Amino acid sequence: MIATTETAKIPGLSAAGANPEITDYTPPADVELLLLGKCKCIPGVPVTPDGIPTPALISMSALRLAEIPILIASAGSKVKPLVPFIELDGSPGRDIRTGRAVERVGEIFENARIIGEELSETGDYLVIGESIPGGTTTALAVLLAMGFDAKRKVSSSMVSNPHPLKIETVEAGLKSAQIQPGDLQRDPLKAIGLVGDPTMAAIAGMVIGASEKVPILMAGGTQMTPILAAIAEMSSGEALKNLAIGTTRWIVQDSTSDIRGIVTQIARVPILAANIDFSSSKYPGLRAYETGVAKEGVGAGGSVIAAIAKSRGSIKLKHLTERIEKNYERIVSEKSL
Amino acid sequence: MIATTETAKIPGLSAAGANPEITDYTPPADVELLLLGKCKCIPGVPVTPDGIPTPALISMSALRLAEIPILIASAGSKVKPLVPFIELDGSPGRDIRTGRAVERVGEIFENARIIGEELSETGDYLVIGESIPGGTTTALAVLLAMGFDAKRKVSSSMVSNPHPLKIETVEAGLKSAQIQPGDLQRDPLKAIGLVGDPTMAAIAGMVIGASEKVPILMAGGTQMTPILAAIAEMSSGEALKNLAIGTTRWIVQDSTSDIRGIVTQIARVPILAANIDFSSSKYPGLRAYETGVAKEGVGAGGSVIAAIAKSRGSIKLKHLTERIEKNYERIVSEKSL
Repeated sequence: MIATTETAKIPGLSAAGANPEITDYTPPADVELLLLGKCKCIPGVPVTPDGIPTPALISMSALRLAEIPILIASAGSKVKPLVPFIELDGSPGRDIRTGRAVERVGEIFENARIIGEELSETGDYLVIGESIPGGTTTALAVLLAMGFDAKRKVSSSMVSNPHPLKIETVEAGLKSAQIQPGDLQRDPLKAIGLVGDPTMAAIAGMVIGASEKVPILMAGGTQMTPILAAIAEMSSGEALKNLAIGTTRWIVQDSTSDIRGIVTQIARVPILAANIDFSSSKYPGLRAYETGVAKEGVGAGGSVIAAIAKSRGSIKLKHLTERIEKNYERIVSEKSL
Repeated sequence: MIATTETAKIPGLSAAGANPEITDYTPPADVELLLLGKCKCIPGVPVTPDGIPTPALISMSALRLAEIPILIASAGSKVKPLVPFIELDGSPGRDIRTGRAVERVGEIFENARIIGEELSETGDYLVIGESIPGGTTTALAVLLAMGFDAKRKVSSSMVSNPHPLKIETVEAGLKSAQIQPGDLQRDPLKAIGLVGDPTMAAIAGMVIGASEKVPILMAGGTQMTPILAAIAEMSSGEALKNLAIGTTRWIVQDSTSDIRGIVTQIARVPILAANIDFSSSKYPGLRAYETGVAKEGVGAGGSVIAAIAKSRGSIKLKHLTERIEKNYERIVSEKSL
C-alpha cells in the first residue's frame, strides 16, 4: 500500500529519500522495485540521505525467492508508479500541521474494504505492507488523537529518532484540528482524516474486508499501530483474532521506540520479528542497517516471515541474505553504469 | 477488463448503452455492478436502447453465487469506475476510422503481462472477461488487418447484426492506417494500435503473463478472437494449450456470426458455451436475450461456466437462473424508486 504525504517534506523528519522533496518518488519507486526488480521513475533505488538503499530490497528478494504474488495499491500517491496498481481513488496526504491531512478517508476505506474482501478469496493469508515516508509521525498523531500513550514510542528511519520534531509537528496538527489527545478515541477515521495519512484508511479497510476469511500479517513497524487501533475500534473482536504484526528485529530491538508498548495498549495481537542480520555482510550499505538506518518499510520484515512460512522453512535466512546481497550488488553496479 | 472507445459512438454500431453517447458509462457501470451488486456512476444498470439489461447481471449473479473473487482492470476508460480497479495506464480508444485507435499499446500490454504473472500465482485458473462497447467492430478490424476471413463473422449486441456498417467502418480505418488486409499478420500489437481497442492489448498481455502457470478461460464472444490471434502470434504454442474460450449459447448458436469459423483459422482452442436459457423467464427483459439482444459481455458465459466448474456442478443452471431473476427483480424495483 503506497501513498505520499507533504508531512514527509518537513526537514529532518524522514530518511525515506535522499532529501525531503524526493520522498514523493520513494513509494512508487519502491513498488516498481518489488514488481520489476528495478525502479523506473528514478535512477537506481530509493536511498536515505547517507545512500543506504530502501528496505524494499529485502522485501523484493524475499517475495521473489518464495514466489509470493504481489499486488500494489495506491491510497494517494503524488507520483504514479510505472507499474500496474490498484487505484483506491485517494489523494496524497497534506502536511498534518494543517489539521486536515487526508481527503476522502471514507471512500479510501470503503474501496480498500472491497478489495480486501475480494483478495481474501484468492489465498490462504495476506501480507500487507506499506511505503509512505513520514509514516511514523502521522502514526504518532493518530495514536495521540485516539488517546494512546505513544510519545517517544514510534520508530524512525533515522539512526537518531527525531522525537522532539515529531512531537512538535503532531502537536501543531492537533492544534490546527482543534482536538485534544483522546478526543477521537471512538472515531479513528476522523483522526486519520485530520492528522493521519492515506495508507492508514486503506490498510484498515483492507484488513477489515479480508480478516473475516483469512489471517493477515500487517507487515510494518510502529506505523501499523494506529491502523491496529482503528481496526480494534471499527470491527468486531473476531477481526483481531486473525491478525499479527510482522516486522524486523531492528524494530523490536530499537531502543529509541517501543512497538510492544504501543500494541499492548490496543489489543492482544502477536508481534513477529524477522531475525535478519547484516552485521557480517560484505556491503557497507547493508551493514548500515545494523546501526539503525531504515529499520523497516515496504513490508520488509513481514515479507521475510512470509517467505520462510510459505517455504515451510526451506528458505532460510542464510539463503535470503545471499539473495539480498546479490540484488544489492546488481543494483549498485547498474547504478554506477 | 474494461475500456471505452469512440468507435462505439458511431450510430447504429453498438447496443451496449441506451444511446451511443452513453457507452462511455457502460464499462464502469458494468464493473460497479459486479463488485457492488449495483451501479454507482449511473442510475439503474446499463441497458440496450430497448431497455434490456447488461449481461453483467448474469456475470455478477454467477460469480457471487460461486464466491469467485473479482478484480477489475482498466485499459483505458473515459469514465473511471467508482470501485477500486487495477490501472494499466492506457487511454480510451479513438474512433478506428482515424487509423490510430490506441495509444501506448506496448505499455498496456506490458503492464497487463506483469499483472497476469502475479495473478497466475493466486489461483488455480483465471477467467478474463471484457466490457468495451463497439468491441466486435474493433475485433473485425484487427482480424482483417491480420489477414483472417472475418467479414460477416463477428457477433453483435443487436438482434440485427449491422455487418455493412461494421465493414464500412473497418475499411475506413484500414484506409486511414494505410494497410491492406493481412499486412499485419505478424504484428498484432501494431494492428491493435491502428484499428483495435485498449482491451485487446491488455487481455493479450494478461493471458501471456499468466498462461505459463495456470489455465485461462477467455470469457467472451467474437471479441476474444483477435486477442487469441495476437496470443498465437506473440507466444509459444504452450500458451495456447492453456486456453479456452468461454461464451454463451446465444453466441455459438447465433446465425449472424460465426465464432467457430474465426477460431479455427487461428488455433485449436476449445470453445465452451454456457447453456443459459431465459425462454421461460417471467421477465420480458430476460426473455429478450433469447431473441438475440446483447448475447454476451462482461464475461457472462465464462462466469457461468466458472461457477458451475468451481462448485463441481452443485451450482446448476436452474439455481443460477433463479438468482439472475432475483437480481433482475431487485434492480428493476430499485430503478423505479
